[in-house]
Formats: sequence, structure tokens, C-alpha cells
Amino acid sequence: MEIPPGLETTKRKVAHSDEHGFSDDLDQVRVPNVIVMVGLPARGKTYISKKLCRYLKWTGFKTKVFNVGEYRRTDANAADAIHGANASFFSPDNAEALKVRTESARRAMEDMADYLNSGTGSVAIFDATNTTKDRRSIIIDFCKKKRLRCFFIESVCDDPAIIDSNVTDVKVNSPDYKGLMTAEQAKEDFMNRIENYKRQYEPLEESEHESLSFIKVINAGRSFKVHQVRGHVQSRVVYFLMNIHLLPRSIYLTRHGQSEYNAMGRLGGDSPLTEDGRKYAAALADFFEEEEVPGLRVWCSQKVRAAQTAQHLKPDFHTEYWKALDELDAGICEGLTYEDIQQRYPKQADDRATDKYHYRYPSGESYEDVVSRLEPVIMELERQANVLVVSHQAVLRCVLAYFYDRPLSELPYIDIPLHSLVKLTPRAYHCDSTIYALDLDTQEWAETSAQLPLCDSPRD
Amino acid sequence: MEIPPGLETTKRKVAHSDEHGFSDDLDQVRVPNVIVMVGLPARGKTYISKKLCRYLKWTGFKTKVFNVGEYRRTDANAADAIHGANASFFSPDNAEALKVRTESARRAMEDMADYLNSGTGSVAIFDATNTTKDRRSIIIDFCKKKRLRCFFIESVCDDPAIIDSNVTDVKVNSPDYKGLMTAEQAKEDFMNRIENYKRQYEPLEESEHESLSFIKVINAGRSFKVHQVRGHVQSRVVYFLMNIHLLPRSIYLTRHGQSEYNAMGRLGGDSPLTEDGRKYAAALADFFEEEEVPGLRVWCSQKVRAAQTAQHLKPDFHTEYWKALDELDAGICEGLTYEDIQQRYPKQADDRATDKYHYRYPSGESYEDVVSRLEPVIMELERQANVLVVSHQAVLRCVLAYFYDRPLSELPYIDIPLHSLVKLTPRAYHCDSTIYALDLDTQEWAETSAQLPLCDSPRD
Repeated sequence: MEIPPGLETTKRKVAHSDEHGFSDDLDQVRVPNVIVMVGLPARGKTYISKKLCRYLKWTGFKTKVFNVGEYRRTDANAADAIHGANASFFSPDNAEALKVRTESARRAMEDMADYLNSGTGSVAIFDATNTTKDRRSIIIDFCKKKRLRCFFIESVCDDPAIIDSNVTDVKVNSPDYKGLMTAEQAKEDFMNRIENYKRQYEPLEESEHESLSFIKVINAGRSFKVHQVRGHVQSRVVYFLMNIHLLPRSIYLTRHGQSEYNAMGRLGGDSPLTEDGRKYAAALADFFEEEEVPGLRVWCSQKVRAAQTAQHLKPDFHTEYWKALDELDAGICEGLTYEDIQQRYPKQADDRATDKYHYRYPSGESYEDVVSRLEPVIMELERQANVLVVSHQAVLRCVLAYFYDRPLSELPYIDIPLHSLVKLTPRAYHCDSTIYALDLDTQEWAETSAQLPLCDSPRD
Repeated sequence: MEIPPGLETTKRKVAHSDEHGFSDDLDQVRVPNVIVMVGLPARGKTYISKKLCRYLKWTGFKTKVFNVGEYRRTDANAADAIHGANASFFSPDNAEALKVRTESARRAMEDMADYLNSGTGSVAIFDATNTTKDRRSIIIDFCKKKRLRCFFIESVCDDPAIIDSNVTDVKVNSPDYKGLMTAEQAKEDFMNRIENYKRQYEPLEESEHESLSFIKVINAGRSFKVHQVRGHVQSRVVYFLMNIHLLPRSIYLTRHGQSEYNAMGRLGGDSPLTEDGRKYAAALADFFEEEEVPGLRVWCSQKVRAAQTAQHLKPDFHTEYWKALDELDAGICEGLTYEDIQQRYPKQADDRATDKYHYRYPSGESYEDVVSRLEPVIMELERQANVLVVSHQAVLRCVLAYFYDRPLSELPYIDIPLHSLVKLTPRAYHCDSTIYALDLDTQEWAETSAQLPLCDSPRD
């Protein structure tokens, strides 16, 4: 069969057309994006940077955060003229320190341009305060010169409770203070640092540059101001920022109980639960009876084994069935065992072992395809509070790789045993993970606080 | 096989979880949404209402626009006290007219509540000016009493060019004026009507109500202000409004050329083009050579027959391959003819004939599933300029139903012949459609300005 040129080498399965409007400059089709944070200290810039980076990487954009503070800490140590990084360092009157800070920003920008223009990455997130028009104007000019598209995210917050909690939780543990002073001293110094920034802070304004594109995130997502969004990446970033939230909640993930096909070692299909599987379904209902999760939603795949696993849960949990949560489609290999595949399609088995993430079963799906169809599920999980997801191994690997922030290359190897429940609790810079493993005989759950490891046997 | 209760009756394939946060009031899970337009005349409120309604209906939300102007025209005629609807009718000093207008709004609101609370619909769009805080406060209270979620869309525009084009294109053809005066008189009267509204216009403010949720669309999408978005529907509405645009452009749709499976009457598969199919591919390239579409993007499915159809197009068109554009998966019926299916699976053939839109092939997809996976494609089509989509019959039926604004029940019957190209040009309230049908022998294109009709034979 003749395969037209170009099709085989198409790696991305969901296309991202990145330029709106008419352009006869073809280089404009996939302009790399620089996302520039703006805001006073303790406004969640690093939180947004990291979270956005994780999301974009998971959806297939090579993305990296460039944190100017990290450059500054190296430069400041090298300069040796400044002791530590107390608030006076951030005073606009401290010329020596200003030089160090400007130099740190310049180095971060150069690295960022190298990262994007070498083709290594397609999105760079520039994490710094960037609180003056001058500073932003330098960045805009730099991006223009380097042919990069530039988008600002300003986090504005006047709610003292949000700021206080951010300073207390995150900033007193910053490398600027660790081991140098008490938490109270650190907090006081940090509040002074904010004051120093406030003296020169100029919030983003539409009028400051004609090509300015931005989103203002106001009071952690209560309101937004959006101006001149350009291209697919910016549009996705805006949508993502509008759906995330900081409210405490947990996400529970489980595979269905053992199915008849599981017991036979066969892939896919739509077989019902075995007796063991039904025991798990009963235990799962008991677990949530005891756990008393407020307002729990249940999202279930449309496969019989998943629906049977969810069927004993209290009827007042709101249950929805998503086709997007169905297992990876193994195409011509559905219903076969791994031994059958090795025997009948040895070439397929080899190809899969070589690049498990991109490998697509003939007439079926790849992990990359599953990530693509799960994107609306992740977006909706971000928007929701407490959710239990009852799905399948490959699908949950994709979901876990997102919350664990694992590279896509590791994603297909995350070990998710049957009859276990994962509880994820998102924190500022990571996600707590607890594994509950059911003993089918005693109906007892064993609890471990850990991320699920990678498989010993990488075939499944 | 035991099917758990609930699964069979699940009609919607992509779930919409509609409440964020914790709530122990289960009625809150699927609160119907009222979307309330706000803005001076000629700010595109009806354009947004109609476009949003089309999008929501296509994604599966039962949605209806309630246009107060239409109620008012009936009421005003009934009242008989007012002759026509000239600008003085809209003066805030005209007490009699104000009574008619208030009564029209009240009737529209009551109908809206009936529509939503009877379960007939899940989203109502309330299309009126709603330019005063008082008026909006009445709506908020009404929605609260009727247990409806309320979201405002304000269109703000101070660009005279946009307003002038809207007044000229749309308003002088309004039923308020048709046949009653010249276009110039109508325009002048309409500008006076705007002035009357301006005298009492109070733009939306966060502070006017604590539970206020809204988006302000500023200068036809150049900027947005978004406040307190609640739930899945509002989040989707905001994302949609941020991606649509008014720039002139065209979308071209074509099936692949005839494939070997087409020639044999077999479903699906991944066969290459026949000689006729290759002739079509060549003619398609010639067509776009002549058409000279600026900045054309080509979006192609990942099937061989589609890629071969696109392969002779100029290499400087930017081509992307979307798995989401692949043909409806016929599951166990892939590779069979309709006669085979009738013989082997008569029950399946019957079920499909009964409800073609919801019918899902075993281990395959339904039209509803295809609409769900096409949603990101539609969103991206809205955002883009000129695009050529090379795909398949079932997929293009879904895309066309969106642009033609056809009911989902008709969607699976739209007749899309092989070797034809559809050119869609979106206008304010509809979409121009031109069909180019290729004569394979003469390589001539026959051109018709029409929508594609429904099939004579409803089986395919």
C-alpha cells in the first residue's frame, strides 16, 4: 500500500494550527510562544508557571519554565557583593543589586531564546515579577527580534488572605531564607520585599504596547481580563487558567475490578467482572461509605466492567459515563493475549516495545491518541471538586502522568495494579498520592503514601 | 451479560458535570442555564445568541433563543396604541411603550422558565438589550426563584466601523422597518433608537450583584472581561466566545477521492485510492491552484485515502493530519458491505435504521461519538481563517450539520457525494454554501449555490 509522503512522519496526532488570520510568511505557522509572568511577589506566579508547564507538556508541547530568581541566586552568589537576599536587595534604589537582577533576567532570556529557536522547545515560561513597563518593553522587543510570540499572564491579588497564605506556605521556605533566619523574620523580610516591588509596580495596560497580548488573573481566578489572544497555544492557556482553582479537594482513581478477560490475560473487549472483580466493587462502595467525601462525582467509562465496578456506590453520588474514559483501543489485537500478539504479529510487538508511547495498534489507538481524547477530561477534572474516576489501565496511566508530572516517555509504564485505589490531593507545587490496596480475602485496605512506581514488566 | 442499571439509558456520551464545588443539594447537579444578553442595539447580541445557540445544540445541549423584540412586535401590534416601532417607542420617557416592552420581557421570561423547568431544554438564551441594573436585577431574582443559573454576556463596542456595518447590514432589514420606510430613514431612526438606549445604559459592573456571573465582549472580541464563571456550560460558552471571529474567510470540505473499499461497497478500512480517486486528487490540486486562497490550511484525516487526496496540493499550504478527522469507526462491521451487515447482523441493521444518530456499532462509534470528538476541530475551525478539510462522509456530515445549523436527527442523512467540494462562507446569520461537483472525464467542475440535500437512500 502506498503511503503518501508526510503521513508516516506525522508524530502529533492532534494538530495545533497556531496562527490565526492570513499570513504569507510560512515561518509564521508555528511561531514558538513565550509566556511572561507579571505580578508582585506572592501572587502565585510560580504556581501558575509550574502548573501551566505540566499541562502543556502533557498535551505534547515541549515546555520549560525559566525562573529568573534561580538565575539571580547564582549571579548574586557569584557577585559576592551582596550578602544573602534580604529585602534591601529588591529596593529600586539599590543600583548594584539592580545590575545583578537585570543581568539574571538577560541570561534567562537568552537561554529561553536558544531553547525555542534551536527547536528543542515550543513554549517557554518566563517566571519573574516583570512589574514595570520598561522591563516588559525590553521583553517584547527581545521576542520580536528573536521571532517569538509573546503573551503576558499577570496575577493580581488584593485579597490579604490569599497573599498571607502564599507567603506563609511557600515563601518562608524559599532558598533565599532557608537556614538563614526564623520563619517570622523571613515573613517580615518578605513583606518588605513586596513593599519594595510595590513602589515601582505598573500593572499591565492595553495601551502600553500596540501588540500586547495578555490575561490578567484577578484574585486567584475570580475574574479575568483578556486582551488580543493570538494563536492556538494562547487560546488554550487562557482556557486552562479559567478552569483551574485552588479549593481543597481530592481525585480518586481506580481501574475496574478483575474482568473475565483480565483473568484470561486477554486485551480489551467488554467482558463482565469475575467474582473477584465483584468483591472489589462491593469493597469500593464500602470505602466511599466510610470516607464520606462531600459532593463526590463518579466518572465511569462506558465499558461493562467499569460500570459494574461503580454500580454499588451510593445512588446519590452523581454518576456519568464518558466514552473518553474507555480503554485504549487495541484494534486488531483486541481479545488477544500478549503471547498471541507475539506469535501472530511479532513486528507489532517489536514496534510497540521500541516506542510504547507513540505505537498505535493497527485500527486502534496509541497512548498519544488516548492523551489527546482525555484532554477534555483533564480540563473538567481541573474545574471540579471531588471526583472518583473508574476507568482502565492505559487511561489511568495518562491521567496519573498528568497529576504526577511524569514525562510522556514514562507514562506507558506506570504500574497500576487491579483492586487498588489512588487518592490524589493537589498541593501548590505537587500532588499528594495515597494508594489503598484491597486484600480480597480479608476485605481490608492497606494504605501507602507514595506515587505508583513504574512496572517491572514493561510489556502490559 | 449483565448490564448494570443506568448504563443502557445513558444517552449522552460525553458527560457534562455542571456544578463546581461542594453541594449536598443534588438538584444542583444539572441546573439549567439562562444566558442573558446585554448591550446597546447593533452590538451583535442577536449574532452572538444565534451562533451560541447553534454551537450548544450541536454539542448536545437543548438550547433555544428567546428574542424579546419578537415578543414586543406581537405585543405592540396587539396593544394597537403604538404605530410601528419608531425610535420614540424606545424613549425612556414613553410610559405606554415601556409597559409594552416590560410585558414582552415578562412573557419571554415565563416561556423561558417553562422551557427549562419542563425539561424540554437545558439552556435558554435571553436576547434583549437589558441595559439597566434594574432590568438585570429582575432577571437575576426571577432565575433564583425558578432555580435557574444565570450568566450575562455583554457586548460592548465603541468602534464606529463595526456599529455602522452592523446597522447597515442587519438592522435596516429588521421586521420593524421592512416596507415601512427607505433604508436611509430606517438607519436614521435606528441610530436614534440607539441614542434612546444610551440615555439609560448602565454597563455591567461586578459590584451590582454579589452572585453576578458575566463575560464582557469588547469590540467584537479584541478584549474580554470575565467574572465568576460557574459550571461547565458557562465555561464552554466563554471559551467559544473567545475563539469566534468576524473576519471574512471560507472553509472548504471534501471527502477523499474514491477508495478501493468505496468501489467494492465496503465500509471503513484504510484502502488507497482507485484511479478515479487519483483523478479527483489531481483535480483538487488544480482547483486550489486557480482559487488562490490566501494562507490556506489543509486539515486531513490520518487515513491513507485522505492523505492521498491531499498529496498533490501545493506544498506551501500548511498540512496537518488529525486523527479526530478519521471516519466513524464501524467496529465489528468495518470492511463489510451493507448487504453483509443485513445478513450477518440484522438486529444491528434494524437498530441503526431506528436511531441512526445514537446508534453505535459494536466496538465502534455512533454519530454522537463523532460529534463529541470533533468538538475541538470545530473550535479550531472557528478560530482559523481559510481551511480545507479532507475527511470522510460521516465526519463531514457532523461538520456540515454545524455550519448548516441542521438538527442532529437530520445530521446522519446529509448527502455528501464523492468527488465534490463544498465551500462554506460564514455570514452574520447563516452560511453561504457552494457545491463544486467534478466531472471525472472532462475534469470540469459544475458549480451550484445550495446546501447539500438529505439522502434519498438513508442507509449509508
